[in-house]
Amino acid sequence: MTGSEQLSVAIVGGSGYAGGEFLRLALNHPHLNVTQVTSERNAGTPVGLVHPNLRGRTNLKFRKAADLDAADVVVLALPHNSAAKRIAEFEAKGRIIIDLSADFRLKDPAVYRATYGEDHPAPDKLGEWVYGNPELHREELVGATRIACAGCFATSVILALYPLLKLGVLLPKDVIATGLVGSSAAGASASDGSHHPERAGSLRVYKPVGHRHTAEARQELPGNFPIHLTAISTPRVRGILTTVQAWVPDGWSDKDVWSAYREVYGQEPFIRIVKVAKGIHRYPDPMLLDGTNYCDLGFEMDQDTGRVVLMSAIDNLVKGTAGHAIQSLNISQGWAETTGLEFAGLHPA
Amino acid sequence: MTGSEQLSVAIVGGSGYAGGEFLRLALNHPHLNVTQVTSERNAGTPVGLVHPNLRGRTNLKFRKAADLDAADVVVLALPHNSAAKRIAEFEAKGRIIIDLSADFRLKDPAVYRATYGEDHPAPDKLGEWVYGNPELHREELVGATRIACAGCFATSVILALYPLLKLGVLLPKDVIATGLVGSSAAGASASDGSHHPERAGSLRVYKPVGHRHTAEARQELPGNFPIHLTAISTPRVRGILTTVQAWVPDGWSDKDVWSAYREVYGQEPFIRIVKVAKGIHRYPDPMLLDGTNYCDLGFEMDQDTGRVVLMSAIDNLVKGTAGHAIQSLNISQGWAETTGLEFAGLHPA
Amino acid sequence: MTGSEQLSVAIVGGSGYAGGEFLRLALNHPHLNVTQVTSERNAGTPVGLVHPNLRGRTNLKFRKAADLDAADVVVLALPHNSAAKRIAEFEAKGRIIIDLSADFRLKDPAVYRATYGEDHPAPDKLGEWVYGNPELHREELVGATRIACAGCFATSVILALYPLLKLGVLLPKDVIATGLVGSSAAGASASDGSHHPERAGSLRVYKPVGHRHTAEARQELPGNFPIHLTAISTPRVRGILTTVQAWVPDGWSDKDVWSAYREVYGQEPFIRIVKVAKGIHRYPDPMLLDGTNYCDLGFEMDQDTGRVVLMSAIDNLVKGTAGHAIQSLNISQGWAETTGLEFAGLHPA
Amino acid sequence: MTGSEQLSVAIVGGSGYAGGEFLRLALNHPHLNVTQVTSERNAGTPVGLVHPNLRGRTNLKFRKAADLDAADVVVLALPHNSAAKRIAEFEAKGRIIIDLSADFRLKDPAVYRATYGEDHPAPDKLGEWVYGNPELHREELVGATRIACAGCFATSVILALYPLLKLGVLLPKDVIATGLVGSSAAGASASDGSHHPERAGSLRVYKPVGHRHTAEARQELPGNFPIHLTAISTPRVRGILTTVQAWVPDGWSDKDVWSAYREVYGQEPFIRIVKVAKGIHRYPDPMLLDGTNYCDLGFEMDQDTGRVVLMSAIDNLVKGTAGHAIQSLNISQGWAETTGLEFAGLHPA
Repeated sequence: MTGSEQLSVAIVGGSGYAGGEFLRLALNHPHLNVTQVTSERNAGTPVGLVHPNLRGRTNLKFRKAADLDAADVVVLALPHNSAAKRIAEFEAKGRIIIDLSADFRLKDPAVYRATYGEDHPAPDKLGEWVYGNPELHREELVGATRIACAGCFATSVILALYPLLKLGVLLPKDVIATGLVGSSAAGASASDGSHHPERAGSLRVYKPVGHRHTAEARQELPGNFPIHLTAISTPRVRGILTTVQAWVPDGWSDKDVWSAYREVYGQEPFIRIVKVAKGIHRYPDPMLLDGTNYCDLGFEMDQDTGRVVLMSAIDNLVKGTAGHAIQSLNISQGWAETTGLEFAGLHPA
Repeated sequence: MTGSEQLSVAIVGGSGYAGGEFLRLALNHPHLNVTQVTSERNAGTPVGLVHPNLRGRTNLKFRKAADLDAADVVVLALPHNSAAKRIAEFEAKGRIIIDLSADFRLKDPAVYRATYGEDHPAPDKLGEWVYGNPELHREELVGATRIACAGCFATSVILALYPLLKLGVLLPKDVIATGLVGSSAAGASASDGSHHPERAGSLRVYKPVGHRHTAEARQELPGNFPIHLTAISTPRVRGILTTVQAWVPDGWSDKDVWSAYREVYGQEPFIRIVKVAKGIHRYPDPMLLDGTNYCDLGFEMDQDTGRVVLMSAIDNLVKGTAGHAIQSLNISQGWAETTGLEFAGLHPA
Repeated sequence: MTGSEQLSVAIVGGSGYAGGEFLRLALNHPHLNVTQVTSERNAGTPVGLVHPNLRGRTNLKFRKAADLDAADVVVLALPHNSAAKRIAEFEAKGRIIIDLSADFRLKDPAVYRATYGEDHPAPDKLGEWVYGNPELHREELVGATRIACAGCFATSVILALYPLLKLGVLLPKDVIATGLVGSSAAGASASDGSHHPERAGSLRVYKPVGHRHTAEARQELPGNFPIHLTAISTPRVRGILTTVQAWVPDGWSDKDVWSAYREVYGQEPFIRIVKVAKGIHRYPDPMLLDGTNYCDLGFEMDQDTGRVVLMSAIDNLVKGTAGHAIQSLNISQGWAETTGLEFAGLHPA
Repeated sequence: MTGSEQLSVAIVGGSGYAGGEFLRLALNHPHLNVTQVTSERNAGTPVGLVHPNLRGRTNLKFRKAADLDAADVVVLALPHNSAAKRIAEFEAKGRIIIDLSADFRLKDPAVYRATYGEDHPAPDKLGEWVYGNPELHREELVGATRIACAGCFATSVILALYPLLKLGVLLPKDVIATGLVGSSAAGASASDGSHHPERAGSLRVYKPVGHRHTAEARQELPGNFPIHLTAISTPRVRGILTTVQAWVPDGWSDKDVWSAYREVYGQEPFIRIVKVAKGIHRYPDPMLLDGTNYCDLGFEMDQDTGRVVLMSAIDNLVKGTAGHAIQSLNISQGWAETTGLEFAGLHPA
């Protein structure tokens, strides 16, 4: 495809944060032309009233999903389990389908059932989808027309652990991931728990055990490791900071971890290794990543015990959702991988 | 009354922030014994599940208002216009009634109608109520059995302006008050505007003109001044900081303002004049007042223009609501005025 | 100049927030090529260690100002009074000079002295500089080689008031501006007042009277109005929200204000009028502007009194500093005015 | 001692947060009379200028430590390693000494050396001190005259793990503690890392391995367990939330953990078990504990794996420092254990 061509894009469920973020990025993408955005609740309303950052940026109005016209790319930003139930309907509208929900991420219907507590609505279609994580599936993404965007927490865990597991160096001990997340991860609907006076000062463990994204991490990471995830909400709006506690062989030092990360991620456009000896920005910090597609990775060895603390930071709505999806789409279409994802982030922020 | 006696207290509408704060203060008050707390939505639920700071502090459970028994003091913490409509019902239950809502603050039914857009449900009773602001109405509060607790924004404006208006020194020019407030002022119910991702970073003018508390300020302050109020929400949870721009005679200096404040407030137990030449805490700051009954007041003259900037800071739920009510009750019963209101506030906070 | 040409840029004083923000924007600007960044304290250090958002974005290292080579554009991001004292030194290095400080904003040396308490170091040069506010000085900026970037608070006041003063409709009464600002406005150096535990929850009046930017507003705005500014710091990092209280003729309504704004700003690429009847984003909010060059403007009439409340929101480091400067430079060079300033801002943020 | 007697108190190093918090609590304590507060930097300054919450609460001025007079209780709130070096000097001034620093917490000089990188200045005195944690050392505290107040992070880890280790039920696997802490833990001195624009939005791993409080936890907890601690700073000012990942025998359920906690902590006045099935306050949250001496504890089992996630929340300056010290002093003197520590905390906060 040449630089002047554009694919038309329809975003289904565009009033939430994931759909809104895809819209923001797509409006600034030279090869994408957003022609439709749906919202049942806001049909007829200008997009800029719901996403006020887009005032003056688009004249689009929300329409109902029932009024969807054909588009080259259909982006599904629907609640869990909604996309899979209606997938045939959306396949009829577009050649390329990107799902931002969890519906098509897990390959095994049994794992889906164990994780989500119900049968998958379209189990025969699971095999058609590529897990939308470019760092692990870049080759499969080339030409892909079904992209299941990776989960935000899953991405933060997977990208931190992948090098050590790919190289097969982790000791077979329990891996403990602790994820700190901002309030946007819970979506755009107000609830008692998101009420500002109850949330602004809170450090709240909301999923000590049983986080659903654990299933994605176990599926994607080599070695069938016992990976555990505890999720804590923080006063931030965006961002995930995950620490992962794992165990490396005797004698390993920071240098060895560094080599492993370099070997696996040396050419990755959106992964930065952040490990600085002095100053105040020594490790990854989601503060610096709002609006960017970076995943910053760091680590520190406890040489006395063989414990390594891996750290990852992302913007849950960009590298954790919509940016990851754009990056995957760029790869699928043969566009430069960073297209539309150039924002560097702010400092201070 | 001697120190060992206690009045029984029933709080009607105790699941909100105002009722919860009255409950917190009353549980720690040596002359009060809370025997009942009502909540239609939470009837049967232990109080500590709704107000988690009170876990282990009380075994009370919410009951329905219909099950209200008699009490010495009935505290009404109901939505606007609810208390007045049912006032006869509550009068039958208790000798002393404290209303935390706006229902009995305005003396003139016509002003009530102009402010709240409907007729007052019990206009003949308005004359029975004392406006619950001890600094202005201490003598009337002695022995009072109907106390209409002053509004939070009104209190911040009134206490800043009262000395200069009482002494009759302000020039007859428009007075501009700008109030910055935390999210708790909007109450305990979740809404789109209180959704954490939409509110955490926001500086939002929510009432540029027409704030209802303006009517209280105009009623209470001498001189029939043109007082204007603009209200802005901030990322804090508690607290109000109000600046008031007014005009003093030629030649006035900070020293004159200081004298006026001292003359009027010199004996007030909860008013502190904060005006320090150096350091970082030079003026009132609500950060320091969470949980306290203080109103900190400051000021600064622009001698070139005769403009004086008055500043007031309070905790909207304490000096702005429940603490103000306890202080008024203390006066009405002849108890030491600071009883139950001893908390000094935190630093850092 | 054609699209493929680039001007070389040297940033003097690039370790602060203003210089860092100009750098961030310039790195993404197709017609600018940053070749030098100076910092006395950080000479030899990679830029990305001080501005961690720029990790992987540039290989530049800080150098000392003494090692400055020639460049097409020299951007001065120095403390107050430093640029003017050394202006001859910088003029020798570059054809175009942009000063981000206050040194060349005021035209009248007497006003400078009254405002800054000392004589201007280069009063004879004041006439060479254009005040870098495109909305007021677009024509003068064409071809300009000396641009004194407008102050952040001044910009928020000027852009709110300009239409009504240009059209001559304001009544001759005192105008009260109240500005709420984030902590980045005080710069990148740690101090007692910026210590997080003392600042995170603070609402602190830091300049009730005598703010220096008042002089800029009085210089730039027609009509010689008595404009007063009170500045308050908030828990945000970026952003200014300013309310301006002014007085319009009898009979004026919102519609008249709207017409005035439209008439004056109808073609402005970075001004948006934000006044929505419903929803939660009814007026300007700096939350939505981090990283953008927008100035959002709103207003509300109090028809009973003739008072109008004007509201403006900006990012103090972009439209208040570096973005404003880039916009001015774009105009001076005949480039599209929005070049390099396309970022739409985030929602949620 | 009868209720009417008071001990005189001298606070050495009273301008920091720990000393200031002890002062706040002691001023409200019926058996304590603070007669002296020292600060080298602020000698001669009224205490209320440094701790603005205490304006109007005390007329004390800071003095230099060299001017220290005798007192019943000498409280040392000095930087690490300062108290031990000058301990003879302070022992000459008071009968009871409470040290808020880490100097006398570790019993073994070799562990001290390994932890703090230097020899202990007074190793022969280490045996005289009681580790100031009432839940573990209540009996030793009775009559104690040397109290080494437990570290804040250590307290959060120790109190979470103690029941399961005391009862000997934990499996011998690595225990991973992850502590989230507010900015006040780093003290009252401004630094680059505490500069508000760099800290307000940050989630920053500041001690992934090697946290010094690990030595305290290992000393105090039975079983010689491999306990690891990762410390992360958050945007809060006060508070610690710690999750601890440990392993219990096959077949254990929440009920068994609950029983263990009840058995060990059933009579503790400041420990609350927080584990609620519904609502938004299901686990411990430091948001609710600012200013209180509570340690809230929660837990959740992952029955598939035998992993238990323990959670603890405290105010680092109260239960983590000054409140813990007051509680220990109350025990040592035979006063009611909750004296002076009655504050319930705020909601909302």
